[in-house]
Amino acid sequence: MKLGDLSEAQLVSHFRESFPRGERTIIGIGDDCAQVGAPEGSFIVTTDVMVEDQHFHLSWSSGYEVGERVAAQNLADIDAMGGRPSALVVSVVAPRDMDADVFLDVVRGLGDRAREAGAGVVGGDLSAGEKLVVSITAFGYCPGPVVRRDGARPGDVIAVSGTLGFSYAGLDLLEGGHVVPSARGVEELGELEPFVRTYRSPRPPLGSGVAAAGAGARAMMDLSDGPAADATRMAAASGVVIDFDRPSIEEEAWKLQGPALICRADPVRWVLQGGEEHGMLAAFPPDVQLPGGFRAIGRARECAAGETPCAMFDGEVLRGAWDHFSSDSVD
Amino acid sequence: MKLGDLSEAQLVSHFRESFPRGERTIIGIGDDCAQVGAPEGSFIVTTDVMVEDQHFHLSWSSGYEVGERVAAQNLADIDAMGGRPSALVVSVVAPRDMDADVFLDVVRGLGDRAREAGAGVVGGDLSAGEKLVVSITAFGYCPGPVVRRDGARPGDVIAVSGTLGFSYAGLDLLEGGHVVPSARGVEELGELEPFVRTYRSPRPPLGSGVAAAGAGARAMMDLSDGPAADATRMAAASGVVIDFDRPSIEEEAWKLQGPALICRADPVRWVLQGGEEHGMLAAFPPDVQLPGGFRAIGRARECAAGETPCAMFDGEVLRGAWDHFSSDSVD
Repeated sequence: MKLGDLSEAQLVSHFRESFPRGERTIIGIGDDCAQVGAPEGSFIVTTDVMVEDQHFHLSWSSGYEVGERVAAQNLADIDAMGGRPSALVVSVVAPRDMDADVFLDVVRGLGDRAREAGAGVVGGDLSAGEKLVVSITAFGYCPGPVVRRDGARPGDVIAVSGTLGFSYAGLDLLEGGHVVPSARGVEELGELEPFVRTYRSPRPPLGSGVAAAGAGARAMMDLSDGPAADATRMAAASGVVIDFDRPSIEEEAWKLQGPALICRADPVRWVLQGGEEHGMLAAFPPDVQLPGGFRAIGRARECAAGETPCAMFDGEVLRGAWDHFSSDSVD
Repeated sequence: MKLGDLSEAQLVSHFRESFPRGERTIIGIGDDCAQVGAPEGSFIVTTDVMVEDQHFHLSWSSGYEVGERVAAQNLADIDAMGGRPSALVVSVVAPRDMDADVFLDVVRGLGDRAREAGAGVVGGDLSAGEKLVVSITAFGYCPGPVVRRDGARPGDVIAVSGTLGFSYAGLDLLEGGHVVPSARGVEELGELEPFVRTYRSPRPPLGSGVAAAGAGARAMMDLSDGPAADATRMAAASGVVIDFDRPSIEEEAWKLQGPALICRADPVRWVLQGGEEHGMLAAFPPDVQLPGGFRAIGRARECAAGETPCAMFDGEVLRGAWDHFSSDSVD
């Protein structure tokens, strides 16, 4: 069945079944606006758009995984402020001749991830178009202090939560033809399963941002574009230099040895440049006990004379933020 | 110059110039999330997506008008709850080979409308893609009661603010070839200017929703799909029948006589079925003095025995909500 064969009523009814209402939802789907509680007197908000054949391929990812992925990256942005998600809204552009089951799977994946995180899906919009485009806006609230990216100070420990480079390794395994795109699960993928799965549908360590905020993190971001690019941003915002620690990075790279041998790739590069896993990058005061799941991977220091804020590895300034139109983000 | 020739830094700097910050913005563009004040303890939220060649044609509308239009329809949704806008976020998908000036005009149009309404633009995302897609999520707060669409009661006066059928007339003028698509302003378009302009860039009577809420409106929606479809929705949500008043509808149709003669179209149809103008449709208690700009166009009554809630004109049940995938909206 094609998407165009479903009536609006059928689609809306599917949305209502797949989407959680959310504890903070006062008015849900069905009016001109939804209404969401914000007893703290403010809310935090983030938005992301994912485009077919730019951010994902439906031949490599299931519809369910696409829905999960766009939910995960928005929920990670909320976590990265030390926040908990309250609600999200979603706009979907989809071709009329798209397989209706794939479309409904996108909706289900998104709804399941929102439900698991405690967020309601309170509104949306739907349009026909040539390629699948999924745009999510997520809202949240901060139980404690709001953690920005500009608070790292000289001496701070730079630490991460979540996996590093798994998604990039998974992408290279798929792009290199080392994995059959349709292969799923441990039976078919064996030891490569974690990498391919992380590419298809990252599982960010949601809640580690809230824990880091509680432990006194002074600066935090989620790892959207990888440690090199994101640490460069944190360094620039905070006016410090971030030195990555080689043994710590090599310890991360060690976890990628299997796929690195298969792809003949440098796992250190995967670790430093791999994004879309959405773990946390946080700066902690030097005396803080790191919350569970965080590993120290570097340290912040003052800029030397004539030096500008940057991230460094092995004495070299790392390439900064991506400057590709295809993966840019305003925020 | 093509969009792909601009660097991320240039684009972000353009966004910062074009986008208002907003009085309620605590953290603006530049971190994982923005933070927006909500001292009322809740916020209202709406989202809309507009797709090139589905909702607009860049040969008929300027980039600026496209930006204005998507802002206007979201701001009208906020108004339709009796709310004032606080902030919005925007995601744009655009082809790399798009004319950079057209793209920057979209951003400017959107920013100007947000600024005029008092809303900040606090975040966004940008991706390459084959067609221009603009997705906006807008937030607001209600200074008084939140007005839903389900509160109309038998005896209520059904009234509208804003123009009716102007956008539909403008579309028919363009589709019928009666107007040169590139023609702009009164000099070139003469008396047809208001209709073509309203199609290209509607100017909803923002604030009339807040005024209606203050005057005691019991149900309200913005006119997205036209009085027939939207009154059908209000009737269904409220469990009443809405009878349109023929003389009042004819008075509205009279304003469309010029284009109706040119297009050989029925202006009553334009009035009843024309959407995308985003005036307000509201139900007021019978004794209320209508706020400025509102005209009564009908009345709500109880369903007769065996009758289901609906909107009627001239003794006939009007066709309900659009059931086209291309223009559907979850909310």
